[in-house]
Amino acid sequence: MKFCSQCAHPVEFDTPPDDYLPRHICPRCGTIHYQNPKLVVCSIPVWEADGEAKILLCKRAIEPRYGWWTLPGGFMENNETTVDAAQRETIEEAGARIEVVHRLFSLINLPRMHQVQLFYRARLLDLDFKPGMESLEVKLFAEAEIPWNEIAFSTVRHALQCFFADLAQLKRGGSFGFHSHDILEPHYDADKSDST
Amino acid sequence: MKFCSQCAHPVEFDTPPDDYLPRHICPRCGTIHYQNPKLVVCSIPVWEADGEAKILLCKRAIEPRYGWWTLPGGFMENNETTVDAAQRETIEEAGARIEVVHRLFSLINLPRMHQVQLFYRARLLDLDFKPGMESLEVKLFAEAEIPWNEIAFSTVRHALQCFFADLAQLKRGGSFGFHSHDILEPHYDADKSDST
Repeated sequence: MKFCSQCAHPVEFDTPPDDYLPRHICPRCGTIHYQNPKLVVCSIPVWEADGEAKILLCKRAIEPRYGWWTLPGGFMENNETTVDAAQRETIEEAGARIEVVHRLFSLINLPRMHQVQLFYRARLLDLDFKPGMESLEVKLFAEAEIPWNEIAFSTVRHALQCFFADLAQLKRGGSFGFHSHDILEPHYDADKSDST
Repeated sequence: MKFCSQCAHPVEFDTPPDDYLPRHICPRCGTIHYQNPKLVVCSIPVWEADGEAKILLCKRAIEPRYGWWTLPGGFMENNETTVDAAQRETIEEAGARIEVVHRLFSLINLPRMHQVQLFYRARLLDLDFKPGMESLEVKLFAEAEIPWNEIAFSTVRHALQCFFADLAQLKRGGSFGFHSHDILEPHYDADKSDST
């Protein structure tokens, strides 16, 4: 941020009175431009057939991580709820209609990226999915087929690991839990495939 | 937003190619200025004595809702986790040290306010609390003492109601749950004390 979005004057980077962090401040109109973390909301779309759960993944058609696999998700928009965001992103990226299981499955903090990521378990409603503009390919994967070495982001890797661990518990009489996790390292690393 | 924060040129409000929502776009440098919901993180600080749970509330010294009671909380900052934010806000507003119970207690969507609010249950570590700059008074309340008609925000009211409902369940052998809720109306209303 170089200029005030209210009056176009160059901003200064200084700590306001009664504050403890430096902010972008306009010395002309006095506006303080706060910058806050963004919410990324993803779905874990599940298709169950013959007693086996398959997960819908998208192969990314955009950077970062072009060609790597991810769960449908993206930045939450104003005027929507977190569940709205999960449903919208799943339609946009995978052309897929889901019913969200309303219990939040996972919350992952990424302080280095100024992000909080939320994951919702969801039931895939039909098999008429197709890649959206940001995906090269959309495909269902059973647990044994998950391309673990080609997962785009550490958050998605962690959510998938938690999902399959809970699924194994479920078969032994357990249940799906809620998972909270902090990833203090960078979100992805061009030289490493397993940056969790 | 009137001017580009990158180059100071007046922005336009239009839908970019391959997008579906209008954004603030700079016609000179091409920057698209996205606006996204903010996270508000609050704690529910609990002090247990003689088998009774008391909750720490703050009387607001700032608008909106000057003089009304609320839980400690505020906008999450960059470079921190959600639990960091809950602890920091509790120190800032109530001068109180807490240990967060890591399970997220409540997530409330406020799409009209472009906010998602998170509530963490927490154990108050000592009784050396005192009002911060944004509080007139900080006080412990047992359930029967909660000033329900003077609670500042519908989100705080909802989180407190869920807390005491779960506490009652706990005494009957149940446990604390996770609560997800959408408030589609405005967050508070100057003419109404119970705007949930």
